[in-house]
Amino acid sequence: MNPSMAELFDTDGAIYMASRRDPGGCRVALFGVPYDGTTSFRPGTRFGPAAIREVSSGLETYCPQLDRDLEDLAFADLGALAIPFGDPEPVVEAVRQATARVLAQGLRPLMLGGEHSISSGAVAAVAQRHPELVLVQLDAHADLRSSWLGAHHSHACAMRRCLEVLPSQQLLQIAIRSGTREEFSELRQSGRLVAIERMAEALGPLRGRPIYLTVDLDWFDPAVMAGTGTPEPGGFHWPDFAALVNELRHHDLVAADVVELAPQLDPTGVSSVLAAKVTRSLLLLLGR
Amino acid sequence: MNPSMAELFDTDGAIYMASRRDPGGCRVALFGVPYDGTTSFRPGTRFGPAAIREVSSGLETYCPQLDRDLEDLAFADLGALAIPFGDPEPVVEAVRQATARVLAQGLRPLMLGGEHSISSGAVAAVAQRHPELVLVQLDAHADLRSSWLGAHHSHACAMRRCLEVLPSQQLLQIAIRSGTREEFSELRQSGRLVAIERMAEALGPLRGRPIYLTVDLDWFDPAVMAGTGTPEPGGFHWPDFAALVNELRHHDLVAADVVELAPQLDPTGVSSVLAAKVTRSLLLLLGR
Amino acid sequence: MNPSMAELFDTDGAIYMASRRDPGGCRVALFGVPYDGTTSFRPGTRFGPAAIREVSSGLETYCPQLDRDLEDLAFADLGALAIPFGDPEPVVEAVRQATARVLAQGLRPLMLGGEHSISSGAVAAVAQRHPELVLVQLDAHADLRSSWLGAHHSHACAMRRCLEVLPSQQLLQIAIRSGTREEFSELRQSGRLVAIERMAEALGPLRGRPIYLTVDLDWFDPAVMAGTGTPEPGGFHWPDFAALVNELRHHDLVAADVVELAPQLDPTGVSSVLAAKVTRSLLLLLGR
Amino acid sequence: MNPSMAELFDTDGAIYMASRRDPGGCRVALFGVPYDGTTSFRPGTRFGPAAIREVSSGLETYCPQLDRDLEDLAFADLGALAIPFGDPEPVVEAVRQATARVLAQGLRPLMLGGEHSISSGAVAAVAQRHPELVLVQLDAHADLRSSWLGAHHSHACAMRRCLEVLPSQQLLQIAIRSGTREEFSELRQSGRLVAIERMAEALGPLRGRPIYLTVDLDWFDPAVMAGTGTPEPGGFHWPDFAALVNELRHHDLVAADVVELAPQLDPTGVSSVLAAKVTRSLLLLLGR
Amino acid sequence: MNPSMAELFDTDGAIYMASRRDPGGCRVALFGVPYDGTTSFRPGTRFGPAAIREVSSGLETYCPQLDRDLEDLAFADLGALAIPFGDPEPVVEAVRQATARVLAQGLRPLMLGGEHSISSGAVAAVAQRHPELVLVQLDAHADLRSSWLGAHHSHACAMRRCLEVLPSQQLLQIAIRSGTREEFSELRQSGRLVAIERMAEALGPLRGRPIYLTVDLDWFDPAVMAGTGTPEPGGFHWPDFAALVNELRHHDLVAADVVELAPQLDPTGVSSVLAAKVTRSLLLLLGR
Amino acid sequence: MNPSMAELFDTDGAIYMASRRDPGGCRVALFGVPYDGTTSFRPGTRFGPAAIREVSSGLETYCPQLDRDLEDLAFADLGALAIPFGDPEPVVEAVRQATARVLAQGLRPLMLGGEHSISSGAVAAVAQRHPELVLVQLDAHADLRSSWLGAHHSHACAMRRCLEVLPSQQLLQIAIRSGTREEFSELRQSGRLVAIERMAEALGPLRGRPIYLTVDLDWFDPAVMAGTGTPEPGGFHWPDFAALVNELRHHDLVAADVVELAPQLDPTGVSSVLAAKVTRSLLLLLGR
Repeated sequence: MNPSMAELFDTDGAIYMASRRDPGGCRVALFGVPYDGTTSFRPGTRFGPAAIREVSSGLETYCPQLDRDLEDLAFADLGALAIPFGDPEPVVEAVRQATARVLAQGLRPLMLGGEHSISSGAVAAVAQRHPELVLVQLDAHADLRSSWLGAHHSHACAMRRCLEVLPSQQLLQIAIRSGTREEFSELRQSGRLVAIERMAEALGPLRGRPIYLTVDLDWFDPAVMAGTGTPEPGGFHWPDFAALVNELRHHDLVAADVVELAPQLDPTGVSSVLAAKVTRSLLLLLGR
Repeated sequence: MNPSMAELFDTDGAIYMASRRDPGGCRVALFGVPYDGTTSFRPGTRFGPAAIREVSSGLETYCPQLDRDLEDLAFADLGALAIPFGDPEPVVEAVRQATARVLAQGLRPLMLGGEHSISSGAVAAVAQRHPELVLVQLDAHADLRSSWLGAHHSHACAMRRCLEVLPSQQLLQIAIRSGTREEFSELRQSGRLVAIERMAEALGPLRGRPIYLTVDLDWFDPAVMAGTGTPEPGGFHWPDFAALVNELRHHDLVAADVVELAPQLDPTGVSSVLAAKVTRSLLLLLGR
Repeated sequence: MNPSMAELFDTDGAIYMASRRDPGGCRVALFGVPYDGTTSFRPGTRFGPAAIREVSSGLETYCPQLDRDLEDLAFADLGALAIPFGDPEPVVEAVRQATARVLAQGLRPLMLGGEHSISSGAVAAVAQRHPELVLVQLDAHADLRSSWLGAHHSHACAMRRCLEVLPSQQLLQIAIRSGTREEFSELRQSGRLVAIERMAEALGPLRGRPIYLTVDLDWFDPAVMAGTGTPEPGGFHWPDFAALVNELRHHDLVAADVVELAPQLDPTGVSSVLAAKVTRSLLLLLGR
Repeated sequence: MNPSMAELFDTDGAIYMASRRDPGGCRVALFGVPYDGTTSFRPGTRFGPAAIREVSSGLETYCPQLDRDLEDLAFADLGALAIPFGDPEPVVEAVRQATARVLAQGLRPLMLGGEHSISSGAVAAVAQRHPELVLVQLDAHADLRSSWLGAHHSHACAMRRCLEVLPSQQLLQIAIRSGTREEFSELRQSGRLVAIERMAEALGPLRGRPIYLTVDLDWFDPAVMAGTGTPEPGGFHWPDFAALVNELRHHDLVAADVVELAPQLDPTGVSSVLAAKVTRSLLLLLGR
Repeated sequence: MNPSMAELFDTDGAIYMASRRDPGGCRVALFGVPYDGTTSFRPGTRFGPAAIREVSSGLETYCPQLDRDLEDLAFADLGALAIPFGDPEPVVEAVRQATARVLAQGLRPLMLGGEHSISSGAVAAVAQRHPELVLVQLDAHADLRSSWLGAHHSHACAMRRCLEVLPSQQLLQIAIRSGTREEFSELRQSGRLVAIERMAEALGPLRGRPIYLTVDLDWFDPAVMAGTGTPEPGGFHWPDFAALVNELRHHDLVAADVVELAPQLDPTGVSSVLAAKVTRSLLLLLGR
Repeated sequence: MNPSMAELFDTDGAIYMASRRDPGGCRVALFGVPYDGTTSFRPGTRFGPAAIREVSSGLETYCPQLDRDLEDLAFADLGALAIPFGDPEPVVEAVRQATARVLAQGLRPLMLGGEHSISSGAVAAVAQRHPELVLVQLDAHADLRSSWLGAHHSHACAMRRCLEVLPSQQLLQIAIRSGTREEFSELRQSGRLVAIERMAEALGPLRGRPIYLTVDLDWFDPAVMAGTGTPEPGGFHWPDFAALVNELRHHDLVAADVVELAPQLDPTGVSSVLAAKVTRSLLLLLGR
């Protein structure tokens, strides 16, 4: 790949099925941000991107729902973003810069987390390029705290940070089911909260607008996504996600992320497989 | 807390989020009965109450469905009932006495099990205070055996024991899906078996009557509640429970229990989180 | 049991609840084929049949849906088919011969896998006896590859092999959700692919025809069946299976198999319990 | 097997490698007592005997240390003792009677637990036949409480119960490493406590005396035996056990038991494999 | 407890066996620092102190090695230190202040981590009170980096930070087995590295000096301590620790910590039991 | 790397710490053979090489025992050998050819398995180049069967196959502890069996001879290596391996393999860490 890109990413890990390392001639670029804000070796979402790649080969490259095949899509897996450790602020900035670089090369970015806190960096870069951007959030939690346990860039503040680079009416929060009283009060007043039954209705009028989809995997029910840090009962299943994919066929998805997979928390491995299948759908939507 | 109460309970363990130890001025009192009829150290439902408390801090105190916050509720976590070990009979009697004491202080009891066999003690105490009591059972199993493997107070006999202190027409058994031929024959003839679709219809006419809700967590599907001793496929999900909560907003819930969580059987921990969220809903319903 | 039968099966393992070893006077015979094509001791579906038997005693013998009890059914658990190891070809042939022997004794076979590759042997034997046989496949995957990674009898080729002994129009593939582009192209053109909503509609006209049901357990959603080698998100739940059971009450189920349980992959054990309950339903359907 | 024996044992489970069901002509008889004092389905040592049998086939039948092969030993696996459930007292009595019956047929018993509380039943039967019996205990815990949590037959009282049928000087407690102050005071005064380095020295003078070896598997270090209810750091390894086996080659081992395996507590399965290898050594020692 | 102390600690969690909450009249005070530098809910050493307390009740209060009983020791479990989240620097400072407060009350502190990075705070406070302090480190890793991944207070720098408050010759590093070339070069030149065989020899001349023992649990072999973030093969076993305890009987242990337990990484739970037993030994040594 | 080499290996997976992909200028080349003879997706030793690479970054690059650093060694990680699936025979041949190619480039091969059956291919290639080759086997099992369960190239026959390309006196089998009576009879007569205490003594006279070390990880005790298919109690620990490494410093190690890691069987992950540390030692020995 382009030398300056090569410096940004570490390619020592596994690669997502059917992808290539070199982004030349590609339309979509995948990259991981193995950040979980911890100094220790094993636990957490740091291992999410690697797990998604590893289990991807257990899936087919063909998606019956979209009737498209990853083999027909030119897309790159750039590897893992090299990030400073510890404090989230420089990580978010590194994500912003890397995303800007990816966009500058004409690539549509798909970022694999890591914690949700990284999303605001990518959203900032995409919003700069696409001022009309609509951010669609799948999440169990509102993530609207101003700060949490003293941290401004906590994953509990992910959407608050995005609202600093994006007007409130450009955010849709799909079927949030957990938050503080204050968060829900804001959610309900803002008109940003979209019930699951009204997802298509809310998205319909936005056709033609560029869309960024951020998938906090804890939006899914713990039954299918036990491998995440803060599982919240009462979540969603694959058919709910497939309904969104169906709707997005008619939209211009320009960027996306898949975050908060903590693979070791689910010893059965099925959480990672679900994340890898979500990734496949998004790659195919981005690649049209 | 009141000295005589203090003798009944062991407060060495963790405490449920947002609760206090002292029941003075409270409306609701939570307590655990870590009984699983075994002499050994680790296995079983003995660890259920502790697990519910530990994971509770991963949930918010605010419940969007009920639009209420535990922070606004005065409720106590009394700790773990001190129980004699081995034989269930004195345990059930200790539960009866402790529940009576809690009621005598003007508190609504929420008991965390432990095995389902403990429920008959609490039901007996509540029924004495509220002769019109309606007992609503969420359970995978009918629990109507007279005795099981020689034990009269087995958890497989939990409802049979309750029927000794409560007339048959005061029991509703919601969507039971496992039992012997004899149990189902009785269930069907008694009119106590309520299909899931008819839950609201069956409860509607009972508004104004005091209600005791016993939640054997194996009522839930093993997909969301793997951490229980006798998982039975074909169970229920959060929306089914939420529908019951919606209905109970219009009822007078006077007592409840949440039993049969065996946390170690689910290494992902999501069973415990579900149990903690069920507990939050019941606390808020009891606390109105 | 009959001496020549006794040679075929190893009875060192546990026995399914309420069954007997001797098939004399029975109508249904269960047997395991602990084959997973591997030389090692622990991993894989080789342990599926044993796990199903072990957890069966945690279920009741009575099925409320069918209102029948295994205690009223004369059925045998023949044990584990003695199989040559390594290469699948002789295994499939051994399965064919054993199934033929079971049929010759007037028994309806229920085979517990092991990998899906074993099904073609059993289907061949049953199809020879019932030329009008309809094969109904529950599966996440099309299994229509001609060969996979060089193996002709791979589990990824299970249905391709069956189509060598059965005309295409005698196969129904229920709600397949994963495959290659070529497999889906064939599926759609063949008319064999049946959407879940149209299951009853597709089966209705076949009443009176002999039916073989092959249950690849990965048809179920990973939420309830994490214990399988290639979990595929977006699968089915117990009510979907129960709907098929309801339909099959009106059909002549002559043989069945339950395959692809890899019990160690699900440390909660609930996958094995689901497989054991599926087995109970099939035994009762076969035993009418 | 002999009809009256057949009534005592349930043969539905798996069988230990290289054994037969029928004890006719055998010298040693193995049987399980799946008792853990709990009414629930999954947890505990109830599953110990089954786990030992299941993993036994991963071992060889030949023991290089003893240079003997199970294939050359006529021994029976009688199955699981049918036991009343709940209260330990009748279980201990059933064990006593079964052991007496086994002895009466000229068989040397090897009992697989289950909890340690069952040992006193077997020891009583063997001591009646061999009044000179020496009981050798491998255990992490002294097990000398008079009663525990109200239970007289708790596993924490296992040796106290044995001392009711056996004089104190006929008990050797090998390298006990956990107990109350009172237990250790008694241990030290009694002369029954044998340090690991002095095992051979203590056993030497007893050659010619009949020996019963009770192996509470928690004697082993948690590193190799995590699958037990009360693991105690600082335990022993295989070479320590092998040293005892070496010594016992010169003794007359007339009975033995292997107790306290709780297989689900060790998801790696290696605890069960160790228990199965201990069992193999004891079978070969008993079978000389 | 003293009001100003009460503000520092959160007492919502479980309590270590045989301890009390109120430090009045005590000689030793235990407290937890559930810090692992991560913003997420479940993973990491944050859960170490809670796990140690929970499993403690599975051990006896009596220690045969020291022939002392916790029941005879007046010691308090103060609960969990309330800490700011995210950045380690204020956490280390909070630890320093809390330790100083504990010391000021005449209590000997035993801190349960959490990450090793917290130790330097406690060491600073103890060294201020005892300028002659000798710090003895049990650890797999040298922990001598100046900073790691940009963090000055990383757990990989734990001893480097301690060397800022303590002269090099007042540190003994016992049998370190992992580090960079630079760390080992320093270790060997400094004379601080003590081989396991020479532990008693190195400690002997220090009798009479105040000692702080910091136990990074990864000093133990992964066989017995799998539940830690960076397990390093080739570690130590209980007898090695017991040898140190024997030596310390003759020393003046004034403070200690036990860090780096990540309980969820060991599903068998035996790592937590080992940590709880280490804690018991240290309490008894501190309490003389 | 050289184009013809590039065709042989799949580089989609992660890479071992401190290695490079291109073998130009290297002295040592690592490659994986993810073969476990099974057609299914998840279980088995197929995942061994990937696990070793993934956890390697948790170790330091510096080895204190050898006082060398991987950073100073030019070595390549070639990736995963592309292998035909199913039948072991062509896999062994592919291994032989790849090893020959690696040797032809002046590289010393280190192969990561996969099953032990692959070793005979590598040994054949190395023995052709070094007719004086001595094969040193670390293993729990003799692996001397002629065939097993019908398979000639089973891992139970690994050494029998090696003896077809190497004279018996060129094989040393270190401290084998499991086998059939026949295998042990051969072992003892052949003089190839070396007791652990006599390892150095047996290797001493072989200085100057080229050595191939095959490490079947089940040689280690299950306490430290639970993640293997056929764990055998009574195995070895890190100091035993370190003793061999010490001896090999004086020998000419020309090739090695590390096989039989089944990482999923050990949910703590410490088995993989041990395998990665063994790999580090062997790389440094090969790289001198």
